[in-house]
Amino acid sequence: MKTDILIIGGGPAGIVAAVTARKNYPTKTINLIRKEVKSIIPCGIPYIFNRLNSVEQNLMPDHLLLDNEVNLVIGEVEEIKHGEKQVILKNKDTFNYDKLILALGSVPHLIPIPGIEKEGVWLVKKDYDYLVKLRREVWQSKNIIIIGGGFIGVEFAEELSDIKDLNISIVEQLDHCLITNFDEEFAIAAEEKLKNKGVKIFTNTTIKEIGGRHKIEYVQLDNGEKLPADMIILSTGGQPNIDLAKKAGIKTEEKGGIRVDAYLRTNIPDIFAVGDCAQTKDFIIGENIPVMLASVATTEARIAANNLYQIKLLREKKGTIGVFSTFIDGLALGVAGLTEARTKKIGIDYLIGEAEAPNRHPASLPGMGKIKVKLIFARSSQNLLLGGEIMGPESVGEMLNILSMAIQQKTSLFDFNTWQIATHPLLTSAPTVYSLIAAAQNAMLKIKS
Amino acid sequence: MKTDILIIGGGPAGIVAAVTARKNYPTKTINLIRKEVKSIIPCGIPYIFNRLNSVEQNLMPDHLLLDNEVNLVIGEVEEIKHGEKQVILKNKDTFNYDKLILALGSVPHLIPIPGIEKEGVWLVKKDYDYLVKLRREVWQSKNIIIIGGGFIGVEFAEELSDIKDLNISIVEQLDHCLITNFDEEFAIAAEEKLKNKGVKIFTNTTIKEIGGRHKIEYVQLDNGEKLPADMIILSTGGQPNIDLAKKAGIKTEEKGGIRVDAYLRTNIPDIFAVGDCAQTKDFIIGENIPVMLASVATTEARIAANNLYQIKLLREKKGTIGVFSTFIDGLALGVAGLTEARTKKIGIDYLIGEAEAPNRHPASLPGMGKIKVKLIFARSSQNLLLGGEIMGPESVGEMLNILSMAIQQKTSLFDFNTWQIATHPLLTSAPTVYSLIAAAQNAMLKIKS
Repeated sequence: MKTDILIIGGGPAGIVAAVTARKNYPTKTINLIRKEVKSIIPCGIPYIFNRLNSVEQNLMPDHLLLDNEVNLVIGEVEEIKHGEKQVILKNKDTFNYDKLILALGSVPHLIPIPGIEKEGVWLVKKDYDYLVKLRREVWQSKNIIIIGGGFIGVEFAEELSDIKDLNISIVEQLDHCLITNFDEEFAIAAEEKLKNKGVKIFTNTTIKEIGGRHKIEYVQLDNGEKLPADMIILSTGGQPNIDLAKKAGIKTEEKGGIRVDAYLRTNIPDIFAVGDCAQTKDFIIGENIPVMLASVATTEARIAANNLYQIKLLREKKGTIGVFSTFIDGLALGVAGLTEARTKKIGIDYLIGEAEAPNRHPASLPGMGKIKVKLIFARSSQNLLLGGEIMGPESVGEMLNILSMAIQQKTSLFDFNTWQIATHPLLTSAPTVYSLIAAAQNAMLKIKS
Repeated sequence: MKTDILIIGGGPAGIVAAVTARKNYPTKTINLIRKEVKSIIPCGIPYIFNRLNSVEQNLMPDHLLLDNEVNLVIGEVEEIKHGEKQVILKNKDTFNYDKLILALGSVPHLIPIPGIEKEGVWLVKKDYDYLVKLRREVWQSKNIIIIGGGFIGVEFAEELSDIKDLNISIVEQLDHCLITNFDEEFAIAAEEKLKNKGVKIFTNTTIKEIGGRHKIEYVQLDNGEKLPADMIILSTGGQPNIDLAKKAGIKTEEKGGIRVDAYLRTNIPDIFAVGDCAQTKDFIIGENIPVMLASVATTEARIAANNLYQIKLLREKKGTIGVFSTFIDGLALGVAGLTEARTKKIGIDYLIGEAEAPNRHPASLPGMGKIKVKLIFARSSQNLLLGGEIMGPESVGEMLNILSMAIQQKTSLFDFNTWQIATHPLLTSAPTVYSLIAAAQNAMLKIKS
């Protein structure tokens, strides 16, 4: 079969690549191959247990593809022959492409723990049938151990803590949950919220053994403590799904996925890679970073699909800023760009600005919560914004995107000081104390005049 | 009495000027003169009737001033003698200043209607005692007519509609409520929300007469209809409070307040004017615009106070973008920069991008509401963002500030297309459909390739 544009992978990156390609190239034929009959919303997985009533509720609708005349093929790719510009499925169906976009996603990262092969150890797979079983199992359990306190682990714990009579523990090898992404004070605030919901947190802790006959019965921690367990959920991150690409002779990075340039082009002409399977480079120093986010994936997909036939969206080699948010027991936490810890580690001379303000004015209005902000600016280099962390009520989710816009648009702390904002009693902080501006002011005062 | 820095006015602009001056000039003496014993939060006034339990709840705390060693003087200024650099109060107390900041605010704009002098006609004054009486009167009324369907009028109507057995009508002379600030589709959505709450709206309508013996009993509309009325609330806008400045020989604009440069300096050395009393110039063509917003006022106050003794915050003559938001029966509406109507009127060649998306993903999650976006980009001039309107649930309040940041930082529609955002199931739209990016894409496709 012949197609102008072929996309492998039906996650967010694949879908956005297909839709964007359709909009840019109205007359091309577009095929998208995915192996899943039903496509899961990746970031919605933690919420299938309680907030959503079923895994069914967490499916990506196919109408985005169908409405855009993208032909959806359910099947598994066996081989890419880039010499012949061919993709061959397991069932031997063959596609001849003009442009190929790989949106292969990621697979769970496994850590070697004795007993990990036992029944009762679960992964976080983007697989409908698997998740249906996982959901059923959760509702029949009493003691669940989550290994890995990153975003997924923490969100699972929070969601499961709302289920009656369920004991949830997180085991994290680093000092704090979320500490890979947040500075300590934010990570601790997240942990406090989890503890308030009854989640037990073991940090600086690894698992020595997963015990039990066939099915697991307990885990033994490195300090000797034994925790009873009916289920273990492994949330120790993911790794780029690159086997297919490697086999086809497409270059990959040792750590970090399929090698791509700023337009998501691989080393093979007419083959692009986007999303979790593709290399991601940091916006400050251009090093590979392990960011696997649907929002990054979809940005990459838009860039690739806009530039398939010629470069229309000039990128000037922008790297990935990395913008994450989560929501734990009513507390939204977000980070854009660098944390203080990473800024130090990279070795940048920086200024911190901090502030806190109620999200209503007056603060006595219903729905009040405090918003806490930490901004990081370069001490020299025009005092540009390098990163920021925010926590507080729901509106933090979009406030964070102010920071990602500001970082991308090279905003300095002086720009923040003359920035014009909208404030409203029922929607935001007061203009007199608005935290992003107050934090910038706080930073500015540290520059000796 | 001698003071280094003297501020007249205790509203948001005055407070921020004082606090910013303190932070920049730790050793200077600062005095702030205001006539009100208790200082009202201006944008909180609509909410004193129901959401807040009293006017007391809507006071600006004085601790911001006191904590920053700003001396608070309660008194009324009678005269400014700029030759002697003196300010004289009604009680004859005299201040000799080095730098003077006028933050005189605005006064309600009165329109000449027969009968307007009658008992039962109320203004929206930032005056504690007056508002206490207004609040009491509202709770004793049955029929209230609001004249003027701008932000204040609409917010009053929404708040009052929650009070049982109260009939609320808005009379607006233009085609729609809020039409001065929003394009028609957004204004209509706001009106629908008000109507759902039982508010009667009369547009394209003026008042011919306010009738009644001593106290008002009815209003007569220009179409002859009579509406019974116990109270009339006039919300027909404000005008800069410039009498004191004029008397002192400080230059004012015919319409538009005290004349200032980009650093908020008046024509008299060492005298600055900030907030509602100062001239506000549009960011696109530099014409005077009647924007009176606490957020603009506080930005101006920061700029003035940072630049009191020498220019530290270079402005490059930025004008006022104008960023407004409101919240009506669960629908937040916001506008930043130009509307389509204004873009047309100015005569700019433009592109529109529109999109709509749920604020959750999957959309079946609790708290789902749709976010609707309309962006306006220049068709040439690098396709810069000129303005945007958003409506939807609460998070729209901060989404709007993404747009104000983007306008200020000269963001093009191509920048939106490669913009990296944070998305989260419980906090934002899905990355596949995020409305600000989708709207930019929609606009981009209108550029012929």
